[in-house]
Amino acid sequence: MGKRILLMGFCLVFLCIVRGENGYDLWLRYEKINDVTLRTQYRSLLAQLVVGQQSPTIKVAKDELKMALQKMLQMQITETSNTGFPGSLIIGTLASPAIAKLSLAKELAALGEEGFFIRTVSAGNHTATVIAANKDIGVLYGVFRLLELMQTHQSIVSIAIKEIPQVKLRVLNHWDNLNGTIERGYAGGSIWNWQQLPGIIDRRYIDYARANASVGINGAVLNNVNANAKSLTKEYLIKTAALADALRPYGVKVYLTARFSAPKEIGGLKTADPLDAEVIKWWANKATEVYHYIPDFGGFLVKANSEGQPGPGDYKRTHADGANTIARALAPHGGVLMWRAFVYENKKGSDRAKQAYNEFQPLDGKFDKNVLLQPKYGPIDFQPREAYHPLFGAMPKTPLVMEFQLTQEYFGFATHLVYLGSLFKEYLQQDTYAKGEGSTIAKVISGELEEHALSGIAGVSNMGSDVNWTGHPFAQSNWYAFGKFAWNPGADESEVADNWVRMTFSNDQHFLRPVKKLMLGSRETAVDYMTPMGLNHIMNFATHYGPGPWYKDPNWDAWDYHHADSVGLGVDRTATGSNAIAQYYQPLSDSFGNIKTVPINLLLWFHHVPWDHIMPSGDSFWNELVMQYYKGVAEVKEMQLAWDRVEGMIDQNRFQQVKHLLTQQGREAEWWRDGCVLYFQSFSHKKLPAGCARPAHLLSYYKSIPFPGY
Amino acid sequence: MGKRILLMGFCLVFLCIVRGENGYDLWLRYEKINDVTLRTQYRSLLAQLVVGQQSPTIKVAKDELKMALQKMLQMQITETSNTGFPGSLIIGTLASPAIAKLSLAKELAALGEEGFFIRTVSAGNHTATVIAANKDIGVLYGVFRLLELMQTHQSIVSIAIKEIPQVKLRVLNHWDNLNGTIERGYAGGSIWNWQQLPGIIDRRYIDYARANASVGINGAVLNNVNANAKSLTKEYLIKTAALADALRPYGVKVYLTARFSAPKEIGGLKTADPLDAEVIKWWANKATEVYHYIPDFGGFLVKANSEGQPGPGDYKRTHADGANTIARALAPHGGVLMWRAFVYENKKGSDRAKQAYNEFQPLDGKFDKNVLLQPKYGPIDFQPREAYHPLFGAMPKTPLVMEFQLTQEYFGFATHLVYLGSLFKEYLQQDTYAKGEGSTIAKVISGELEEHALSGIAGVSNMGSDVNWTGHPFAQSNWYAFGKFAWNPGADESEVADNWVRMTFSNDQHFLRPVKKLMLGSRETAVDYMTPMGLNHIMNFATHYGPGPWYKDPNWDAWDYHHADSVGLGVDRTATGSNAIAQYYQPLSDSFGNIKTVPINLLLWFHHVPWDHIMPSGDSFWNELVMQYYKGVAEVKEMQLAWDRVEGMIDQNRFQQVKHLLTQQGREAEWWRDGCVLYFQSFSHKKLPAGCARPAHLLSYYKSIPFPGY
Repeated sequence: MGKRILLMGFCLVFLCIVRGENGYDLWLRYEKINDVTLRTQYRSLLAQLVVGQQSPTIKVAKDELKMALQKMLQMQITETSNTGFPGSLIIGTLASPAIAKLSLAKELAALGEEGFFIRTVSAGNHTATVIAANKDIGVLYGVFRLLELMQTHQSIVSIAIKEIPQVKLRVLNHWDNLNGTIERGYAGGSIWNWQQLPGIIDRRYIDYARANASVGINGAVLNNVNANAKSLTKEYLIKTAALADALRPYGVKVYLTARFSAPKEIGGLKTADPLDAEVIKWWANKATEVYHYIPDFGGFLVKANSEGQPGPGDYKRTHADGANTIARALAPHGGVLMWRAFVYENKKGSDRAKQAYNEFQPLDGKFDKNVLLQPKYGPIDFQPREAYHPLFGAMPKTPLVMEFQLTQEYFGFATHLVYLGSLFKEYLQQDTYAKGEGSTIAKVISGELEEHALSGIAGVSNMGSDVNWTGHPFAQSNWYAFGKFAWNPGADESEVADNWVRMTFSNDQHFLRPVKKLMLGSRETAVDYMTPMGLNHIMNFATHYGPGPWYKDPNWDAWDYHHADSVGLGVDRTATGSNAIAQYYQPLSDSFGNIKTVPINLLLWFHHVPWDHIMPSGDSFWNELVMQYYKGVAEVKEMQLAWDRVEGMIDQNRFQQVKHLLTQQGREAEWWRDGCVLYFQSFSHKKLPAGCARPAHLLSYYKSIPFPGY
Repeated sequence: MGKRILLMGFCLVFLCIVRGENGYDLWLRYEKINDVTLRTQYRSLLAQLVVGQQSPTIKVAKDELKMALQKMLQMQITETSNTGFPGSLIIGTLASPAIAKLSLAKELAALGEEGFFIRTVSAGNHTATVIAANKDIGVLYGVFRLLELMQTHQSIVSIAIKEIPQVKLRVLNHWDNLNGTIERGYAGGSIWNWQQLPGIIDRRYIDYARANASVGINGAVLNNVNANAKSLTKEYLIKTAALADALRPYGVKVYLTARFSAPKEIGGLKTADPLDAEVIKWWANKATEVYHYIPDFGGFLVKANSEGQPGPGDYKRTHADGANTIARALAPHGGVLMWRAFVYENKKGSDRAKQAYNEFQPLDGKFDKNVLLQPKYGPIDFQPREAYHPLFGAMPKTPLVMEFQLTQEYFGFATHLVYLGSLFKEYLQQDTYAKGEGSTIAKVISGELEEHALSGIAGVSNMGSDVNWTGHPFAQSNWYAFGKFAWNPGADESEVADNWVRMTFSNDQHFLRPVKKLMLGSRETAVDYMTPMGLNHIMNFATHYGPGPWYKDPNWDAWDYHHADSVGLGVDRTATGSNAIAQYYQPLSDSFGNIKTVPINLLLWFHHVPWDHIMPSGDSFWNELVMQYYKGVAEVKEMQLAWDRVEGMIDQNRFQQVKHLLTQQGREAEWWRDGCVLYFQSFSHKKLPAGCARPAHLLSYYKSIPFPGY
């Protein structure tokens, strides 16, 4: 018998390896627990489920639990109202008798709207596991947390976990167009099937919502910031309402982008002037209409007077004028307005990095209470590394939403493996010194620093219709990590990566350790082979892919971003240059402004550095720059080797897919390195440092965009 | 032991039901064979695999076999060169010693380039199963056929199957745009990731190729007939070559659409006149360039002087002039040119149904040998039913490609369940009487009737990036059926449906029988609730979705297609009208032209029928028309009930998805019925017949496009 079962087991495993995984299940694979001890522990502690209440969200929580336990433990947890049995899992709010009688009111009070705790409690002469919250959604979050413990093979014998989200609005921004394309999307098309809505709810909407709930993402802006006014028509509101209904039980509120000229485009008005009485009325009526269809609609996200989008500036009104008109339409219904601070005039010769601050900082205090301003993490545009956005800490009267980008618009699309947890951590823990030391961006956006009730964080999504949702299998980690950092801006990027790898791939240390290392270094590696030492925005401007420090067209000149000349490289943003450093608090202003104290990874952001400049290492700047590029490429090779070594530890499908992507990434890292080094060499006229082999081709070869050498 | 294995088995089954299927595996699920007798038979007959040759295609065939047998039988077939064992499966061409020594040369000779046979032969004192062909691709087709036998639970004890495709070029047409959208696509976006090509080969390309090989589809036109000239640039040819490399082992040749104005758009020439020497040279060079990258490139598909596309007519040249220039560029390389006959002037008042015939028939004999003309199955545009295209049989000197449409542009997108096997059958078996009785369209396109070497059949694909490839789970059947009918135009639509249901869902008769019935009636049901009795092209012209017999804009007037007035309905295409009947051979011309003998399902295509006209049934035309609409809606309800009754027989995922789609289809069938009946009633001024309950709303309600009542 043992032999036969063993054979069957082998065949099953073999089946899994042969069949491979397609990534659809994301990190919610609920892989069977093979460890006998762990399995026994889990089974004994989760024998009964006590749920004393009903609601769509409670149902979702129960279904997820049952499905997960079936998969992980091959067991069907039985539902009972009797807490008297060993192995009871009691979940709920005070609406559940079983929870109510546990005398947890004081602890619950501290949890707020979405928090939860998971605790092992005494129940008679045995223990029980309790997941409790004030609201149903907290229960769902707690259930996902418990399942995460189990997927990461942690003990649940004695649990004492309490989690309260630090940021209120934790929102994905989908730059999805109504025609099914996704701007800066590299993982297929939009999953929102507007043609089939409202009648048909695609299974993907549900699995999307589950993934969000599992990491605490509680909002989704469904459409592109380059907005189509059609989204606000009755027809599309009805379709959106059906989507909202599908997402609601999972705690995901729906938001829409609002095209500022909608009063003209769909309202038939002659103007969209935010101070025009008809326009004000139109927005008020439109908001009422929206809330008629979607009573808990989140609000609008607006991109105005940016990159050709209409806005209040078209009528010589301020951003505050524009935002407040729409915000006042939303306010009676509890809605918020997120107004993007991604505004700049694309003027050659001016410092783009200063413009958003100059435009918005003076408006601090002029926005209505339900307006949040949404800057990107840096003042240029989602570069692999930027100095942080000086607006953070500079607008104490205005809640600011941090806008991260999960889709890798400047980070290698869906081809390069880049774990952004490192980036999230870096910017969230950045000290602005706005109120002295410790004034981190995390505290700014959580509302703690300046005591705001409203708080928010946004991630431009990398999710599309690809079977595995994100194109590159590892890109899923950025969706996961965004949720984790949004919930807790103080999260640890290594722990987040650890959990994700365990759930998505394997708990096996032989896999986990090298792959985590690979992930944690990946962002810096990409910085190194693309834009080291504070370089930025030197990609192919047309495609946003591959190197383009030589790029020039009537609208864009890469030189504006790197200022390469015979003297050196980098943009002087000190007092002798654009003086962007003045937008930062002390002591940052001084430390950024001093070539000796500026962090080396921002050197070229703030300084025009002579090729000969001697670095702290004692080597010349030119040599270090080149070596940084070569380091990046060498690191990709290390990633490739590390990945090769874990073959066989996961399914062939995903293993091979990542392997091939890493191969491509290596070729493109060389393209970046060689193109940039040869180009900058045409200014430095210096030899490559020892150990850096000459590129295989001439500069013209690397310039033959879109890709050389095929 | 028995109990434990049973429990494990139950859990596995339960897992499958809980987990559900997402449709990604199409009809190649290779579901585990639970029937012990069958399993024993298969295992005993397929114990060894004898393959005496190597090639990419042979490898693909082996891999498919191994994977399938592992899934179906939980066994690993061992490879051996020794045919002496029982249970040998010997596959190959004469290049394999094991095949060579079986003395099959004479039988192989008759198989042609792609044919194969599967036979049980004597091998010593036992039998062996042989799959043999002249070329490797035939072996792959044979392997898929054997696996189909097994998936449909047929005995393989004694096989004698020989299959030779009747049509040479069996091609999918993908109306995919380079930006990832699909024109008339309802199942997600394009799966061709042009940005990641040529470096990354998506797993989907392989599974797409497998699906095609499994039904004998041997070509794919990768891009939209509304072509983007960029597809012919070096950059894109290199990307296409990578795709071609990936598809080649599966026998799928790559084709591209060619924009007629490409010489200007990407060649920099001042003209695209096909008789201009520079233009001729440009096409010749371009073809040479294409074949440099893709040595076995199939050829071009061209849409010219149709719906705004550039063409020879822009230079006052004929279609033949235009086609021949490009064809001559392809000829030295063995390429073909498929020239679409979908040409019409959108002129109100003229009979569109006559135009393609008038335009192309006189050109018969004027096209070069490697040109095929490609008309749709009817002379208007993929309507649920049309009179067949009069070009079939009318151009004896020109090989014609039948263009079917798998994507349901006029058939309910991805929401309505419509099995098109019935439609394929109807048109392929249509007798044209071109050379007397028996001059079926099947014989026209196979080349048999008029003795052409070249032959082709095309299907506008319904495949996209949706996880299940086609949106509606049942839409997969149209991809499958197209392949089967392309290989054998004489196929039986019921047998095709039978096999598909077995492989895709279940061999259980309790499921198979009612679901087959549902499928076989579905096309006529859709005809009934949309456009019965020969009505056509009365949908919403803007969306191609939902009814629009009232539709009118500056370019389109639905009235041109139905001619409703106080007298009656339908378009007079007899001698007293547009005389389109003259384009058909006798006796069709006469029988179509006589209101008493015209098939009732084409009545309104050929005749303007008075509301009072007495039908063969004795009832008035008006009554029958209305009853046909009501019949269609009633049939959808029957489909819903039939589907409800099979709950539990397949996975919940796909069951629920189809259930919800059928619910939506029912609502939309009512929308069609009520909108059309009320609209036509405004002309007939007659009461609805007994038994037809009055619509719930006024006509204005049903006109409130895009969808009423939400």
